[in-house]
Amino acid sequence: MSDFIDELLAKPVHFLDENAPGSPVAISSRIRLARNIRNYPFPTAADKNACGEVAELIAMAIKRSGALGKKYWSTNAGALEDMEKAVLLERHLASRELLHGGAEQTLHIAENRICSVMVNEEDHLRLQALMPGLQLDECFRQISELDDKLSSQLDMAYDATLGYLTACPSNLGTGIRVSVMLHLPALAMDNDIKPLEGGLAKLGFTIRGMFGEGSEDLGHFYQISNQSTLGESEAEIIAHLQRVIDQIIEQEESMRCKLLEHRRSNLLDAVGRSYGILKYGYMISAKEAFKALSLVRLGVDMKMFSTLDTANINELFISISSGHLQHLAGRSLSDNEEKSFRAQLIREKFKNSSGHSNNV
Amino acid sequence: MSDFIDELLAKPVHFLDENAPGSPVAISSRIRLARNIRNYPFPTAADKNACGEVAELIAMAIKRSGALGKKYWSTNAGALEDMEKAVLLERHLASRELLHGGAEQTLHIAENRICSVMVNEEDHLRLQALMPGLQLDECFRQISELDDKLSSQLDMAYDATLGYLTACPSNLGTGIRVSVMLHLPALAMDNDIKPLEGGLAKLGFTIRGMFGEGSEDLGHFYQISNQSTLGESEAEIIAHLQRVIDQIIEQEESMRCKLLEHRRSNLLDAVGRSYGILKYGYMISAKEAFKALSLVRLGVDMKMFSTLDTANINELFISISSGHLQHLAGRSLSDNEEKSFRAQLIREKFKNSSGHSNNV
Repeated sequence: MSDFIDELLAKPVHFLDENAPGSPVAISSRIRLARNIRNYPFPTAADKNACGEVAELIAMAIKRSGALGKKYWSTNAGALEDMEKAVLLERHLASRELLHGGAEQTLHIAENRICSVMVNEEDHLRLQALMPGLQLDECFRQISELDDKLSSQLDMAYDATLGYLTACPSNLGTGIRVSVMLHLPALAMDNDIKPLEGGLAKLGFTIRGMFGEGSEDLGHFYQISNQSTLGESEAEIIAHLQRVIDQIIEQEESMRCKLLEHRRSNLLDAVGRSYGILKYGYMISAKEAFKALSLVRLGVDMKMFSTLDTANINELFISISSGHLQHLAGRSLSDNEEKSFRAQLIREKFKNSSGHSNNV
Repeated sequence: MSDFIDELLAKPVHFLDENAPGSPVAISSRIRLARNIRNYPFPTAADKNACGEVAELIAMAIKRSGALGKKYWSTNAGALEDMEKAVLLERHLASRELLHGGAEQTLHIAENRICSVMVNEEDHLRLQALMPGLQLDECFRQISELDDKLSSQLDMAYDATLGYLTACPSNLGTGIRVSVMLHLPALAMDNDIKPLEGGLAKLGFTIRGMFGEGSEDLGHFYQISNQSTLGESEAEIIAHLQRVIDQIIEQEESMRCKLLEHRRSNLLDAVGRSYGILKYGYMISAKEAFKALSLVRLGVDMKMFSTLDTANINELFISISSGHLQHLAGRSLSDNEEKSFRAQLIREKFKNSSGHSNNV
């Protein structure tokens, strides 16, 4: 077990802050930049030696430039246990692809976890800035600083016409992917996500689940991102996404009011049952727990609970994830053990809380 | 609204008593006798006049003989509102067939509700004795007394070879149907009801749901009855059923221990979720409420709750039934109104209770 995972887990989840701008609907903002080093083959076409050389170059550049601050953690996929990989994934600090790699797939994380660098994933460099709430401008400021510092040390592959060169043409140009994670339980309850998806696609945006494709129904969390990286400046992409996000937040908020007005009993029922299952259940899957927590979070946000707050619930979403649970247990858990342990943690958390009220 | 329904509803449900013999697995014992009056056509073959004449004869016989005690209620299907019919059904004091009838389908209920007489259902007379717990001998004593008193006034159709003559040959002979209602949540959880059904059929017994066929999964309540009324004396039929019931109770109790030992988390989870849904839900169908109450009752019987007792739960099974709810509301309710009102009643009942414990 790496020490830095223990250190990481001892800290609160850095991208959750119930007082952040845009909270409670906006969970977190994330920008990542794809970069490659000139004259080196893309990782997908490179052998281990070439990848190793790139990894070393980048490690040195991070050190010399101070791009990740004075203190940062470095590791590689080959050095990590399954449980640790799960934790990094659950904290959104590494991608599944990187974690499938070996010693050449390295990872550097600033102590404050806002900025991180993945090496030899699809591109030589994947820079990330991840912050709580809706903070795209600040995210961009942070990642630009990281990019500038690294660029001062590394000769990035850049074409005056095409922009930054990337392994996949979909990242060509700015190499930027801007995402905002939103909590949309009311729109989900009203079956508005599918139509929203269609509308966003027309504007060049995608909507996916918490962990990308296939995780759409996980706790009613949705990531909205730009699809195209070409033909618009970074600032334009960010401003465009910001406008879209503002609108979706407004839709979610107005749907919450509508539910309260027109489907009050259904809303109270959905929130109450979820709370009851979490408070008194003894076995619960991650998927069911996410859904139930999502509805309780909605209830908390709508002031139905006097003894629970958004921070309590936010934290649970991460701490009951499989990797975090196994790390806490100190060993890998069978499916049933995991369900029991998850339910136990949740029960403890809800022990002193009382139910929701209909005085909303 | 008939006054006697108000009077009836003001009294506790007479066939529920958590201190009765065989409780908590045995809910109630019921014996009914089919009888017909000589020289009158069976109700199925009789016109209104003939039925009316029979109804009058019987009313007079009940009065003269004192068969239902000093005070008893009399009514007929034609005089009852839908809501009242539902209440009588939910209290097991009238059959659906009788309630579908008119003025000739009369009903007489002793004030203590143990004995009752339905007139012009399938037979001229259907006598019933219904008591809490496992009390077949006492039930038989009560119904025999009722039968004797009525027979002193009425010339019952009886054949020295065939026994009592009945409209349907399945009741020929003794005309007796002996039933015991059992609560079998542990056997149901272990999927043992189907095999039990097969075993009982071979012995000449049937197992059906709380309200007869089609209600099999309603709250895990099962009625076990004799199928044949011919070739055995009443005492033999009762003794035979008693032995079978004793065995099933033993099976249920041993399955409860097994679940606790080998599937403890599943058991606690099923009980806890049910409790959570009942305590915090805002809309619940009768079917779902019955299932959840059944599992909470199991938890109460297994001493998982310190703040709930079997009597509380037993009473709820009846009071949240559709007819009782509508009567309490004082009007007929839409489907959604009924679900909301049911959830509200249950929440109030569970307000001051705390959750189950795993100290079992």
